[in-house]
Amino acid sequence: MKIKMALLLMFALWPSPTAQAQDAHTTAAKPYAHHLMPVPMAVEFQAGRLRLSSSFTYAITGYREARLQNYLERVLRRLEGRTGLTFKRGAASEVAAATLTIDCAGAGLEIPALDENESYALNVDDQHLALRAATTVGAMRGLETFLQLLDADRDGYFFPAVKITDQPRFPWRGLLIDVCRHWQPVEVIKRNIDGLAAMKMNVLHWHLSEDQGFRVEVKKYPKLQQMGSDGLYYTQEQIREVVAYACERGIRVVAEFDMPGHATSWLVGYPELASAPGPYTIERRFGIFDGTLDPTRDATYKFLDNFFKEMTALFPDAYLHIGGDENNGVQWSKNAKIVAFRKAKKLADNEALQAYFNQRVLKILTKYKKKMVGWDEILHPDLPTDIVVQSWRGKKSLAEGAKKGYRGILSNGYYLDHIRSAEYHYANDPIDEASGLSVAEAQRVLGGEACMWGEHVSPETIDSRIWPRLGAVAERLWSPREVKDASDMYRRLAIISTQLEELGLLHQKNAGFMMRRLAAGKHLEPLKTLLEVIEPVDFSTRSNTPPPTTQETPLTRLVDLARPDNHNRREIAALIDELLADAPRFAAGREKALRLFTGWRDGYPAFLALSNESPIVQEAEPLAKQLAQIGAAGLEALAYLHARVAAPAAWRDAKLALLEPEAKPKSKVRIVIFLAMKELIIAAAELSQLPTMTKADWHKQVKALAAEKKK
Amino acid sequence: MKIKMALLLMFALWPSPTAQAQDAHTTAAKPYAHHLMPVPMAVEFQAGRLRLSSSFTYAITGYREARLQNYLERVLRRLEGRTGLTFKRGAASEVAAATLTIDCAGAGLEIPALDENESYALNVDDQHLALRAATTVGAMRGLETFLQLLDADRDGYFFPAVKITDQPRFPWRGLLIDVCRHWQPVEVIKRNIDGLAAMKMNVLHWHLSEDQGFRVEVKKYPKLQQMGSDGLYYTQEQIREVVAYACERGIRVVAEFDMPGHATSWLVGYPELASAPGPYTIERRFGIFDGTLDPTRDATYKFLDNFFKEMTALFPDAYLHIGGDENNGVQWSKNAKIVAFRKAKKLADNEALQAYFNQRVLKILTKYKKKMVGWDEILHPDLPTDIVVQSWRGKKSLAEGAKKGYRGILSNGYYLDHIRSAEYHYANDPIDEASGLSVAEAQRVLGGEACMWGEHVSPETIDSRIWPRLGAVAERLWSPREVKDASDMYRRLAIISTQLEELGLLHQKNAGFMMRRLAAGKHLEPLKTLLEVIEPVDFSTRSNTPPPTTQETPLTRLVDLARPDNHNRREIAALIDELLADAPRFAAGREKALRLFTGWRDGYPAFLALSNESPIVQEAEPLAKQLAQIGAAGLEALAYLHARVAAPAAWRDAKLALLEPEAKPKSKVRIVIFLAMKELIIAAAELSQLPTMTKADWHKQVKALAAEKKK
Repeated sequence: MKIKMALLLMFALWPSPTAQAQDAHTTAAKPYAHHLMPVPMAVEFQAGRLRLSSSFTYAITGYREARLQNYLERVLRRLEGRTGLTFKRGAASEVAAATLTIDCAGAGLEIPALDENESYALNVDDQHLALRAATTVGAMRGLETFLQLLDADRDGYFFPAVKITDQPRFPWRGLLIDVCRHWQPVEVIKRNIDGLAAMKMNVLHWHLSEDQGFRVEVKKYPKLQQMGSDGLYYTQEQIREVVAYACERGIRVVAEFDMPGHATSWLVGYPELASAPGPYTIERRFGIFDGTLDPTRDATYKFLDNFFKEMTALFPDAYLHIGGDENNGVQWSKNAKIVAFRKAKKLADNEALQAYFNQRVLKILTKYKKKMVGWDEILHPDLPTDIVVQSWRGKKSLAEGAKKGYRGILSNGYYLDHIRSAEYHYANDPIDEASGLSVAEAQRVLGGEACMWGEHVSPETIDSRIWPRLGAVAERLWSPREVKDASDMYRRLAIISTQLEELGLLHQKNAGFMMRRLAAGKHLEPLKTLLEVIEPVDFSTRSNTPPPTTQETPLTRLVDLARPDNHNRREIAALIDELLADAPRFAAGREKALRLFTGWRDGYPAFLALSNESPIVQEAEPLAKQLAQIGAAGLEALAYLHARVAAPAAWRDAKLALLEPEAKPKSKVRIVIFLAMKELIIAAAELSQLPTMTKADWHKQVKALAAEKKK
Repeated sequence: MKIKMALLLMFALWPSPTAQAQDAHTTAAKPYAHHLMPVPMAVEFQAGRLRLSSSFTYAITGYREARLQNYLERVLRRLEGRTGLTFKRGAASEVAAATLTIDCAGAGLEIPALDENESYALNVDDQHLALRAATTVGAMRGLETFLQLLDADRDGYFFPAVKITDQPRFPWRGLLIDVCRHWQPVEVIKRNIDGLAAMKMNVLHWHLSEDQGFRVEVKKYPKLQQMGSDGLYYTQEQIREVVAYACERGIRVVAEFDMPGHATSWLVGYPELASAPGPYTIERRFGIFDGTLDPTRDATYKFLDNFFKEMTALFPDAYLHIGGDENNGVQWSKNAKIVAFRKAKKLADNEALQAYFNQRVLKILTKYKKKMVGWDEILHPDLPTDIVVQSWRGKKSLAEGAKKGYRGILSNGYYLDHIRSAEYHYANDPIDEASGLSVAEAQRVLGGEACMWGEHVSPETIDSRIWPRLGAVAERLWSPREVKDASDMYRRLAIISTQLEELGLLHQKNAGFMMRRLAAGKHLEPLKTLLEVIEPVDFSTRSNTPPPTTQETPLTRLVDLARPDNHNRREIAALIDELLADAPRFAAGREKALRLFTGWRDGYPAFLALSNESPIVQEAEPLAKQLAQIGAAGLEALAYLHARVAAPAAWRDAKLALLEPEAKPKSKVRIVIFLAMKELIIAAAELSQLPTMTKADWHKQVKALAAEKKK
């Protein structure tokens, strides 16, 4: 099985013709296949190579500060790690002799902010690398580009000569991490901050309170963390440590405290805040719950004032997120006092009551010099336009806000927990070309945030749900709109994924370990065979497939190990296309396909041998069986094609039935090669058409038939 | 290549006949192949199985404390992770209904100490698990055994019925981690403490000062860490955090501050402590350096008094290690004042002067209620017998000390940085059967410590140098002397190795990442082929093979990725033995051998394709070439055997020459399959003898000839 994998991988990394066309677009005459991600605003490769050796030195010629020096040192250690070279420590004694010069115009902002100037220019010729930036943060972004430029040939490592001018398309490029539904310790946050910086993202949106957990130490109200977190919360010292860590990497930290709904964990320690009598316990299940702050009592706002006084001091960013989503209004409608209050205030409905609540919260935030961020639901005519709306609802909602004068960021289409492909997120531009927004309105779309909601991730698995797919979102938010070739994105993403591992991210590493745990140290081969063709089902299918997942469910099963956006979906589709395009010989890729299908077919007995000793994988037996049947069908199809004998319709129908939705075992993972296998089966049955048509038409017809049968 | 690997792995995990014999020995009538490590003092498997389901509950019936509850919760989360089951949180409401009962007689010591009672008994029948222990720490040891007992069959997970009575053979079972030559952050220490606890070890020996770095914050003398550590040191808060973390797991923390030699890093900030004028800088190279504390000045002892006052308060263990090794005396002999002092005190030589120094340090330690530990060199008749001597010199030195009344621990033979096999360490008993020690003397041998010296390890690689080999040392120090079957140890070690990964240890995970980095996201297959047959050279060969390794050398090359004690050395030797034992058919294992040798032979062009793009692996081209030649020779040998035609002597000599030391490329890794391949080549040439001898005699002769030619 492994040879096949490696071959497929090589194939994946080979620049496709489209990718080269894309390069040609961005690099003018020279089709140099770089692996920069995100692609810079303007990049022009030149002839010439700067050779890297252990005599590499650097000089900082302009503004300098510890942040810049430390960032540079970390980048140089990564460069040494990749190349095995040891550089002299410290700056070059003579600036003129330095290989790399860094010229910062000034510090930029003391802490990273929305209006930080992140632009830089990087010029490389065969003697020298010159990085210029307006600010320290701009220099950081340029240093990541510098590191990504590293390339090699037989003669050693080099940087290609290039002229780069770069700045982000959007100023707000973030990742939300939900640390409430499942706890994520400091090291998870730190390594992901490093990943954000490597991808030139600039916001960590820290989702810190939820029905399932309150995750920050609050000194004034210690029962919040003491009773609302199972002991799993960040101390204020840890918060300061993370904020400083992010600042050192040019990343903002935007804290979210979700209210008035999603607030059960607050009510465990402080039931008097609730809109219905307690007692409350931490929620272990997932969904929307009733526990909601009481918007009618002054005591609620007094509490929130003290609370925000402490929290706004802890989080230096100018923005603070109050959530505001998914308040189901159940407690409000059932509470006569609240209903009476609403009527007395002439508030039409619970939405209006929530707007009232938001306005009072806004006053508190304003007092503590913070601007408010919230989800779509907070958008209400009574709120001032300096709030920022985060849209989980979609671009339409975002555009409507922009037209009304509100600034916003897009999250719809960037939900990493939905287990979509990188390509899907990549195609999701925050501003549709047909949005009809004026220039001024479009500028109110500040950018976007990917969301890593916590229902289905543990510290072991979270990196694999964020990376490498987040690279595609990072590029969407940084690079020009015109950079949108998915095939080239995937080529670069595969290389970037390994580089991200240098930062301690476990997205690739943990798959091996989790597989070894599933197999209890026994034979891994049948698990590998299966993992190559599956991925987790989407969020709602997983949520609705029994047994239910709660906060207490161990996330160590096949679904947790399976990686989103399995590249074999694309590789195997390409393999089948290659084979069918080679009609009527059907020789191209045939050997590869034979090995692949044989592996699937023969993997089943091996899988049973494993599952007899590892009960935790028994749930996947139906899938392994189905894969074996598909493998056998694939082998039969290959035989028909090879013999140039059209398969009978009855055979075709029987084999296609294997791929029908009703044939699919109920499971939390899904096999990803159905469409390609449909094509292959249909092709075998359509062989008799081939002599009467051009090859291309025949192939087109096969694809059309397969697509038609796609459910 | 991968199919072969998997087959070899299956082979490795299959209990060998010897292993079963061993089990029979320890488990009386029932040959149940457990994977307990370390093997308990007494273990008797019974008929019956206790089935594990999500209805599992526990009860703590005796003494209870948070340490025990927390330890139990962590063990249960690991159990859930392995099985995918979700247990009800909290203790059973009815003790009688609990699946597991834990009965602790008492707390034991407030912090773990040398005389902690670690004994426990574990009885399992088909209804109930009963763990009894004298102390909380004993219960922790028992809980690790409980977790290791988990097994599975077609019907699900179970615990085999068993009666276990267990206690350690030696009370001091430690691991030294040198965090000075290369810095190791807190998370490295913590995850290794978890590993120690899983292997029932009980001492973390924290080597905290060296020529290359001073790693603890000292408030009274802040220039120690400020100038002696490159900013890489533990704050006192972090030290307390680690000590508490270790205490929670029943692990002592013994701090070492090496003096009077190995002290350069002290002298950077405080050159007045030195025996020769400064200034000093942190050493970047490795070896023995001159910088030594001045033993003649009262100011030195005043400094040390203040220093130890602060450090003894920080480390609660009763013992404190003062190093004392490898003082080369150069500064002392060159300093006229020191020489005069020595003569005035009638001290015969520098050793005597060091003994004088030690006595003064001892007084300080005694004042702060600490007992002294030091390396062999501190052993001197003037020192009292309540010190503990750590022997890097060997068992003879240890036994001599014991005869003189000194207690000691063995480290010679347990140096993990020497890159020996687990089997080698496993065979190294702290007390030779022929030691001639009386019972009282033997009791002075307290145990041993494995040493992870820091020259060649980074946070990325250190786990792979410690684990899983440390399991063999753990078993040597815990289990009865009679438990010594290396083959069975390896069988269990492979299973334990995966379990250790649950604790966050990266010994297996990082190999994949480091390989991906070496290949820069390109084809991994040729690297895998090579890695399957190499391991790092031993410590001194590595140190003496250019280019030299310093503190600044990136540890990201092939040698850092290659794993010690490559299991393929044993697997391939077994494969060749199997083949040759099958004379004259030579069919057993032939397919496997063909695939293996073909992979080696054909791996070379693929390796060159990779090294053309990844210059960091170019250093291994000669090795890849040699392996290809050996693979080709292996294929030729198989052909001779298959045809039953004796190979000519000239062929044999030419092929053996490939394996001669002078043929071996100068490298920091070595190919591990030379002996097996020698056997194969000689066998092909000795074929003409076969008809005249019994198969067994012929095989014996082949092995003897191969051994004879072994260099």
